[in-house]
Amino acid sequence: MAQRIVVIGGGAAGIGAAGAAKVTDPAADVRVYTEFEDVGYSPCGIPYVHGKEIPDFQRLFLATKEAYAQQGIDIHYETQATGFDTGKKTVSVAGGDEVPYDRLIVATGFHYASPGVAGLDLEGLYYVKNIRRAMEWDKTLDGVRSAVVVEASPLGLEMVTALLHRGIDVHLVDPGPWALAAATDPDIAAPVQESWLEKGAKLHFNTTLQGFTGDGGAVAAAQTSDGEIACDLAVICTGKAANTALARAAGLQTGSADGIVVDERMKTSAPGVWAAGDCIEVPHSVSNIPIQGLSGSHAYAQGKVAGTNAAGGERRYQPVSVPWGMVAGDWMIGGVSFSETLATALGIPHVVGTAEGISRARYYPGMAKLRVKLLAEPGTLRLIGAQMVGREGIKERADFLAMAVRTGITVGDLATMENVYSPPIGALNEPIALAAQALLAGQGS
Amino acid sequence: MAQRIVVIGGGAAGIGAAGAAKVTDPAADVRVYTEFEDVGYSPCGIPYVHGKEIPDFQRLFLATKEAYAQQGIDIHYETQATGFDTGKKTVSVAGGDEVPYDRLIVATGFHYASPGVAGLDLEGLYYVKNIRRAMEWDKTLDGVRSAVVVEASPLGLEMVTALLHRGIDVHLVDPGPWALAAATDPDIAAPVQESWLEKGAKLHFNTTLQGFTGDGGAVAAAQTSDGEIACDLAVICTGKAANTALARAAGLQTGSADGIVVDERMKTSAPGVWAAGDCIEVPHSVSNIPIQGLSGSHAYAQGKVAGTNAAGGERRYQPVSVPWGMVAGDWMIGGVSFSETLATALGIPHVVGTAEGISRARYYPGMAKLRVKLLAEPGTLRLIGAQMVGREGIKERADFLAMAVRTGITVGDLATMENVYSPPIGALNEPIALAAQALLAGQGS
Repeated sequence: MAQRIVVIGGGAAGIGAAGAAKVTDPAADVRVYTEFEDVGYSPCGIPYVHGKEIPDFQRLFLATKEAYAQQGIDIHYETQATGFDTGKKTVSVAGGDEVPYDRLIVATGFHYASPGVAGLDLEGLYYVKNIRRAMEWDKTLDGVRSAVVVEASPLGLEMVTALLHRGIDVHLVDPGPWALAAATDPDIAAPVQESWLEKGAKLHFNTTLQGFTGDGGAVAAAQTSDGEIACDLAVICTGKAANTALARAAGLQTGSADGIVVDERMKTSAPGVWAAGDCIEVPHSVSNIPIQGLSGSHAYAQGKVAGTNAAGGERRYQPVSVPWGMVAGDWMIGGVSFSETLATALGIPHVVGTAEGISRARYYPGMAKLRVKLLAEPGTLRLIGAQMVGREGIKERADFLAMAVRTGITVGDLATMENVYSPPIGALNEPIALAAQALLAGQGS
Repeated sequence: MAQRIVVIGGGAAGIGAAGAAKVTDPAADVRVYTEFEDVGYSPCGIPYVHGKEIPDFQRLFLATKEAYAQQGIDIHYETQATGFDTGKKTVSVAGGDEVPYDRLIVATGFHYASPGVAGLDLEGLYYVKNIRRAMEWDKTLDGVRSAVVVEASPLGLEMVTALLHRGIDVHLVDPGPWALAAATDPDIAAPVQESWLEKGAKLHFNTTLQGFTGDGGAVAAAQTSDGEIACDLAVICTGKAANTALARAAGLQTGSADGIVVDERMKTSAPGVWAAGDCIEVPHSVSNIPIQGLSGSHAYAQGKVAGTNAAGGERRYQPVSVPWGMVAGDWMIGGVSFSETLATALGIPHVVGTAEGISRARYYPGMAKLRVKLLAEPGTLRLIGAQMVGREGIKERADFLAMAVRTGITVGDLATMENVYSPPIGALNEPIALAAQALLAGQGS
């Protein structure tokens, strides 16, 4: 008889898992339970529709409901899983049904960490996540004159940029000393912040959110350690916390990052149960410290590993180096693994090299500066981190450097790297190589 | 007493060598002899001025003559070296002077391989190289209605694209079956060729140039195996042949690629003599076969190695994997090391994976398809080559894959690579990873 594989969650991890399970065992009965109305859209695109870079929400849908049905994946929409029992091998869904499974994949995702202040029940507090809610909020934005963005997280940076594009007065409130301070150093964040200031943003760093106050039930102001900020809307862009309530209730082990613990096959501590995406934690390739709350690309890849293994295949997931990148203000920023600030805070020994290069030949239209900072392990000079700010080519370089971190490429390798030199697309000297050469020069070699 | 280091040649290799020598030994007497009026400009930019992407030739100058003087580099312009004697340690220059040296660096560059046909003495045959000549030719181009580009080399592709931008009728004549056939496969070249055809280019592949015929001393037609092609101008874009006349006369060893033989320190077979740039040959990292005629970036890096070692420092040069990339027609193409066609021709065993991905999120403006083909060594699945065609991010990916070839990264590593996913700059699935996954799927793993 066909095995039944149940997936809880219809995000990138859940859909990746369901698809991989069906490919691995085409005879399997693969079911997905999601509390939402839709699957198969890109939540990462929501800020760009708000910012009017993308004309409408329909474009964010990648596949139709019929397409999943044709793949043989049975998706139960608007059906919330309320628990699962690893002994009985059943999932409980809202309404009381008990769904038996042979293999279970938990892909319950994340929620935004609560700001933990008064006034969170007011109207006008926006958590960017679900596309149907985003469509409604987008209409609301037409009437918003002033917004507070809470925390300079990756989403926070996207939303500041989007709301500025939309002509809304933006206040960014963040407890850190500069934007995305957990991932960047001040020299990388500075150009982004300058470009926001030029567009009229008000930046409140080293500032604690103390609460929201309302007017007739709707938010009217944010109270902060930097004073009261009047606003029609607050976008809550706090960190991504793993949704582990069901997993904990079922007795699955969670770890130091508060995510579900999985092995390299995405297998949890419970027999017959795999997990993937923002609800799990995975080891960092350099520090081996478990981390959680990565990108949609990570969630999708983890889902494919979980789905393959749950269905009887064999696929392993590697420790992560976490390349990241984004457009923020007029710039692209990105990197991999540790910033100088974070490595110092974690007590990870490191040496640093920084250089400012250019993205095309100096004389070619569209040429832009590209600042690269590399972190290496003292002695071995293995790459352990990087950061970049520029106008183009950030994503591709971050991907490259993530592989360099994973495979033990050294700063010596990077200092002598070959590079494409062609005036419209690349300069004589690759900025990564310049930063590596600067690091070596600082080591006296 | 200060050592005298003489450099023959003022191109990227020569200037790189002179600068590195001066940095390594600031007390050294560093002299450069060049037959030309200028150094320190970018010849690679010339096609883009012809194509009007860059408004004037002045922008191609990177440093002034005063800047070199201030660095303490003594450049002798319009002074042709006519020979050197490794016993007497002297360089002869035009006019009869004998210049003594302690260390010599040969950076005599390249010339375009002769087409070896009748009519090469006609006016209207343009060899793209020197900036002063290019300025004169640029005025000529204003009156040109029809041009023949001889050979679909990298420069040939740039010149076809530039002349089309300029509104000139272009005929490309090449003995190969498709554009850049030594580096690309037909599926990579096809979009480029289609975009040229849309712009009105006439493409004559599998076509042999048989001669030029003139009218009053100026070229009027190219004779080819595909018939006579009337033209006002012919741009000779044949392969780069090493300029080794002086080196051979002085008894330096040359190799199978007809370049000067050097070791990893850029030392030639003669005591006290180093060499760098388009006049040398260097081993390929995969095949170990000596190759010659690489990019300005290679020449500059080799020059720095030669200059450092000649001045008493220590720097080594690695075998090359040769990332390449360019804009051709409406596309960017690029790659590293071998194409499928070339690997087959050389008898290098290989397995192939190809995928078509996208450069940004599917719904984000500016998203473009990006085709990636990977070649790996059977069994080990180490990467040995790659090719790409797309609209953005080709240079950075080629640089990455060149490092992958050099350091022995496998297709398995690439199939599980992490990637930045952010809608304006990167898609959920990295095209390189998709091609690697396709290769593995073809291996049944």
